[in-house]
Amino acid sequence: MINNQINQDTICALASPQGVGAIAVIRLSGKDAIVIADKIFQSTHGKKELKKLKSHTIHFGFIKDGNTTIDEVLVSIFKSPNSYTGENIVEISCHGSVYIQQQILQLLIRNSARPAKAGEFTLRAFLNHKLDLSQAEAVADLISSGSAAAHKVAMQQMRGGFSKEIKNLRNQLIHFASLIELELDFAEEDVEFANREKLNNLISSLISHLSSLTNSFAIGNVIKNGIPVAIVGKPNAGKSTLLNILLNEERAIVSEIAGTTRDTIEEELIIDGINFRFIDTAGIRETQDSIENIGVSRTFEKINQSTVVIYLFDVNEITSGELKEIEKSILQKTDKNFSTLLFVGNKIDKADIHSLEKEFLSFENIIFISAKENINLEKLKKSLLNFVNENKIGESDVIVTNVRHYEALQKSNEALTNVLKALSENIAGDFLAVDIRKALHHLGEITGEISTDDLLENIFKNFCIGK
Amino acid sequence: MINNQINQDTICALASPQGVGAIAVIRLSGKDAIVIADKIFQSTHGKKELKKLKSHTIHFGFIKDGNTTIDEVLVSIFKSPNSYTGENIVEISCHGSVYIQQQILQLLIRNSARPAKAGEFTLRAFLNHKLDLSQAEAVADLISSGSAAAHKVAMQQMRGGFSKEIKNLRNQLIHFASLIELELDFAEEDVEFANREKLNNLISSLISHLSSLTNSFAIGNVIKNGIPVAIVGKPNAGKSTLLNILLNEERAIVSEIAGTTRDTIEEELIIDGINFRFIDTAGIRETQDSIENIGVSRTFEKINQSTVVIYLFDVNEITSGELKEIEKSILQKTDKNFSTLLFVGNKIDKADIHSLEKEFLSFENIIFISAKENINLEKLKKSLLNFVNENKIGESDVIVTNVRHYEALQKSNEALTNVLKALSENIAGDFLAVDIRKALHHLGEITGEISTDDLLENIFKNFCIGK
Repeated sequence: MINNQINQDTICALASPQGVGAIAVIRLSGKDAIVIADKIFQSTHGKKELKKLKSHTIHFGFIKDGNTTIDEVLVSIFKSPNSYTGENIVEISCHGSVYIQQQILQLLIRNSARPAKAGEFTLRAFLNHKLDLSQAEAVADLISSGSAAAHKVAMQQMRGGFSKEIKNLRNQLIHFASLIELELDFAEEDVEFANREKLNNLISSLISHLSSLTNSFAIGNVIKNGIPVAIVGKPNAGKSTLLNILLNEERAIVSEIAGTTRDTIEEELIIDGINFRFIDTAGIRETQDSIENIGVSRTFEKINQSTVVIYLFDVNEITSGELKEIEKSILQKTDKNFSTLLFVGNKIDKADIHSLEKEFLSFENIIFISAKENINLEKLKKSLLNFVNENKIGESDVIVTNVRHYEALQKSNEALTNVLKALSENIAGDFLAVDIRKALHHLGEITGEISTDDLLENIFKNFCIGK
Repeated sequence: MINNQINQDTICALASPQGVGAIAVIRLSGKDAIVIADKIFQSTHGKKELKKLKSHTIHFGFIKDGNTTIDEVLVSIFKSPNSYTGENIVEISCHGSVYIQQQILQLLIRNSARPAKAGEFTLRAFLNHKLDLSQAEAVADLISSGSAAAHKVAMQQMRGGFSKEIKNLRNQLIHFASLIELELDFAEEDVEFANREKLNNLISSLISHLSSLTNSFAIGNVIKNGIPVAIVGKPNAGKSTLLNILLNEERAIVSEIAGTTRDTIEEELIIDGINFRFIDTAGIRETQDSIENIGVSRTFEKINQSTVVIYLFDVNEITSGELKEIEKSILQKTDKNFSTLLFVGNKIDKADIHSLEKEFLSFENIIFISAKENINLEKLKKSLLNFVNENKIGESDVIVTNVRHYEALQKSNEALTNVLKALSENIAGDFLAVDIRKALHHLGEITGEISTDDLLENIFKNFCIGK
């Protein structure tokens, strides 16, 4: 169905963000994009026909609805196949008034363009082989990326790093698969075209490769969605002061560039390009979390949802022995899904740092700060980043960030594990073939070499309109 | 000051609306725009230098910060003087992520571009004589225009219709001014180079022309800001039902184009491209307005702020005599600034239309409707439009919508009226010259032939950044 739509009609949509700005960009894609644009465009000097002009050129003129001038615009022409979608594309850069945007879109629709569905431009790019499925998904990730790390991973994926890896793995498997299939054709003669030892080695190496990819999802997911951090501690340990000082500093940095609003990600903190997401910040600000208060299951819930747990305490009120008890109850009473438990001793402005260091010598993950006096907060941030460094973000070349890819990789891995088992048990070729085909299928789904309408629809419906 | 800035530095800003979209456009303008873009742009096939490429062409490639790829982009080049500002312009069309927008802007700033001030691109266009001041102002009006009529007037002004008219008037005056100045040079010889009769005719004709322009401001202002309408009447006359049915129908039409939100202009109704603005709609919805209740000064306040007043009544509850009394009190107790008082008899679904028409025969401006049953609402809308038609919007070629222009026109007119008076009193040339110069000055201010830094700053500070 989806495949049939392509090249049959011409779609249009606003490509720039909604709202008022200096300019707005309206995009037209399809076989008739240039013909339709020609109907409503009038160049400043006489009648220049867009279809006679070169690809990748820009032309000044008017959008006219009959005798009415709707706007002075710049029109950019991209001729098939050298465009984002691979089809003819016209981009109309008009004044950024909502009224004008609407008028031009309505005019295009009256001239037989169709309003684009969410992600339809990128879907067409995929169907025209301008990018594969995982690259298409990376476009959406790139647009929604809010931190350097998320941006980096999405960019890597969009430029095809991940696809290349998957295609490479799949091609190795295809070679053996074809030999196995050949064996099936000659089943009665009982020949073995596929060397079993080589197959065994290949499958083992693929499994180890796929496992390292699926393992990277733990960190990939965290990069994409932020690292969940819980701040817990007694009521007057200074949790809200700490959170505010961390967040406000961040905000001050971000608002250097005019017009940036951080309202929607108020509970997030980006350190060195890594996004830390504070769990239940409202809770930190308002409620009385206390780890000693075992009845407070909410504290444990927060810890169980976190990757990093900060236990904040007032150094003037807790002894090393008491902290040991607290550590024990955290480790005993939670799921221990978190990977870092960081003790942060607050209010050192009122304490003697030397005796503190002596008192808490036995703790490995401990930092002393004063949130109020802004002492050692940089050190605290570095400790948060340690979690990331230990997990080697950015050093591995390919990181899986997409749940769909993760699941497909897991399914491939399961199938290959079955192949390995069958090999060790000397099971016949036709059983191997079924599982090898399964593995190929799931790897092919990642890059879209194998796709169904349902799959495509599911992926692209989450894109924004105009992309 | 402002004049000196030009061509000395290169400015950059986001030109598309704030927020997330499929794409965003970042604009660079200035002598070094292309040089700066070259530093951060890398074409897909080897190193293409932007400065060697033709104007009005588009190039695919990467924005690089050292070895880090920030985005895949399209770069458009416009070479001076063939650009919006008249300077070199580079437009970077990147993915519409706020993070990427910020990264590219920061990168440009690190490469010695400067963040643009509000309206600075258009200011540069003005200083480079790409458009005059009233055209520049029309750009801002165009972007904020929300109705067909406002759009039409702004477009006309942007395309120079108004400027042409003003320049024409000013040139006629300049000719005579130079003759008068010549007389002053030869003051001792008591010659008259400027024919007094011709001057008299010219000034009279100018005054009449300027008056018709200043008069057009009444309607121009209303086009730009909407026509204020008050709906008043007894509590259960059906005011809120009427308002809702008018507004909802409008919303349904507008929301046909996906993504349009009308939240900000909830109290506006656009009929045939004309914007009607309901005064104190909250009041209509919640409070108990009643014209009989003379104590309710709020009702009169509303009427005094309106251009169109709708008095809504239940036809089943008010007689023709009572309505006459109401009309009298409205006319007596208000400022009568409104130009239309429209009586609207509601709930005709429960009445006999023939006897109604007989009963209210003596009223000229009266319509019978049923808001609930949607009877005759089209007729009501036509009546609202009558106000506009009577005031001939769209028939006159040039309409003044800008307060600054209005004031300048008035001042010119005053000065010319003084000239006319002086002529009739046979006052000497040097007195005439002072007033003629004044008139020339104020006319020149409109198009910017005469401008000061303060004036420019005042005008452009209200623009958005990126325009």
